[in-house]
Amino acid sequence: MKKLIIASTSTIHGSGYLEYLLPTLKQHFNNCTEIIFIPFARPGGISHDEYTAIAKKAFATLNIKVKGLHEFEDYNEGLKNAQGIFTGGGNTFLLVSQLYKYKVMSTLKNVITTGTPYLGTSAGSNICGLTMNTTNDMPIVHPPSFLTLGCVPFNINPHYLDPDPTSTHKGETRETRIKEFHKFNTVPVIGLREGSWLTVNGATITLDGHLNARVFEYNKLPYEVKPQHDFSNFN
Amino acid sequence: MKKLIIASTSTIHGSGYLEYLLPTLKQHFNNCTEIIFIPFARPGGISHDEYTAIAKKAFATLNIKVKGLHEFEDYNEGLKNAQGIFTGGGNTFLLVSQLYKYKVMSTLKNVITTGTPYLGTSAGSNICGLTMNTTNDMPIVHPPSFLTLGCVPFNINPHYLDPDPTSTHKGETRETRIKEFHKFNTVPVIGLREGSWLTVNGATITLDGHLNARVFEYNKLPYEVKPQHDFSNFN
Repeated sequence: MKKLIIASTSTIHGSGYLEYLLPTLKQHFNNCTEIIFIPFARPGGISHDEYTAIAKKAFATLNIKVKGLHEFEDYNEGLKNAQGIFTGGGNTFLLVSQLYKYKVMSTLKNVITTGTPYLGTSAGSNICGLTMNTTNDMPIVHPPSFLTLGCVPFNINPHYLDPDPTSTHKGETRETRIKEFHKFNTVPVIGLREGSWLTVNGATITLDGHLNARVFEYNKLPYEVKPQHDFSNFN
Repeated sequence: MKKLIIASTSTIHGSGYLEYLLPTLKQHFNNCTEIIFIPFARPGGISHDEYTAIAKKAFATLNIKVKGLHEFEDYNEGLKNAQGIFTGGGNTFLLVSQLYKYKVMSTLKNVITTGTPYLGTSAGSNICGLTMNTTNDMPIVHPPSFLTLGCVPFNINPHYLDPDPTSTHKGETRETRIKEFHKFNTVPVIGLREGSWLTVNGATITLDGHLNARVFEYNKLPYEVKPQHDFSNFN
């Protein structure tokens, strides 16, 4: 049975790394003594070791060990034997390029589908959707495909930002960008505000945290849904 | 001799489409009675005809006719015979995908290099750089390559936005994104603020408009340059 936490962000303003999620993660990974961290998104270009150290520190407070996927001899074997998996944020283009380069995308999908508990934040959440077409990141590298894990039957837009009515900037708003996506794609998009996450338990997909999410469906006006909303109608 | 205007944006706050650039464009296209408009970036997903109508209206004030590239039977022939070319903004992933799909990227590069006057705004400016790796756009489609025209020896980041020191949002700032780009690429990036443009005259590349630009070079701290700065040292 699928068991995922798909979070908009790792860190909310004024709080430490993963801090706001720790009570949830304690429950989510309650059967794990060690989890695998996928550091490929490399926020700010930090190294795999540096990034894994950050994840280690956060999970130490839950008495859960963390091993970086890059530390394994065989990445696919590592994932198959994992008690739990966490993919951190950073650059989604880089993350997806690396998952294809190391040929681990389908193994990752298989183990998540068969019940290995998974946590994604930001880029690590983006890849839970059907495609990475709705990332906010800069295309610093060219992945061979934008297809991702498809663990949920829609796309994610993490760090969702409402348009600023006072802005004089002419760059596209997030909403405009997602509308452009829907000129060429029919996949629904969930805009997850910072501090929100989706909890996937088998076929149930619930919005958690205190904030509404914004839903973009093909050929419909965008609409808001409240915490505890169940997205399983998209299945 | 190359002759390009590479503008951050088509429209500045409180002003009409291309309005702030019209005196410059009158001079730039002074030998043209008709120019070709490349509407492929389709801002907000509008049609090629709708987008071309917007360009037509702006250039009518200069007594210059505009014909959409999509109206030609043979796109490459159209570009070869063009008196001038304007590529409008929108989604850079879409624009680049279409330029590859219709196999016009190299013709476009050739005619610009041999002197056909060119105007780009936003996505149409992005493609003047070596690659589209520093676009701000959402990857709504998957281009076969991120290589672009290379009419200037660096990349462009249009609609450049300074970090907001009061923001509590945890999404990456523009500067963070460009720094991540430089973990994997050595190409310089010019952050062009809205209202700024580059004027290319042969080997001379000048910053125009009233604002500074922000320059990001590999392994250097970012720095500001003033209007009338000459970028030809990058050649």
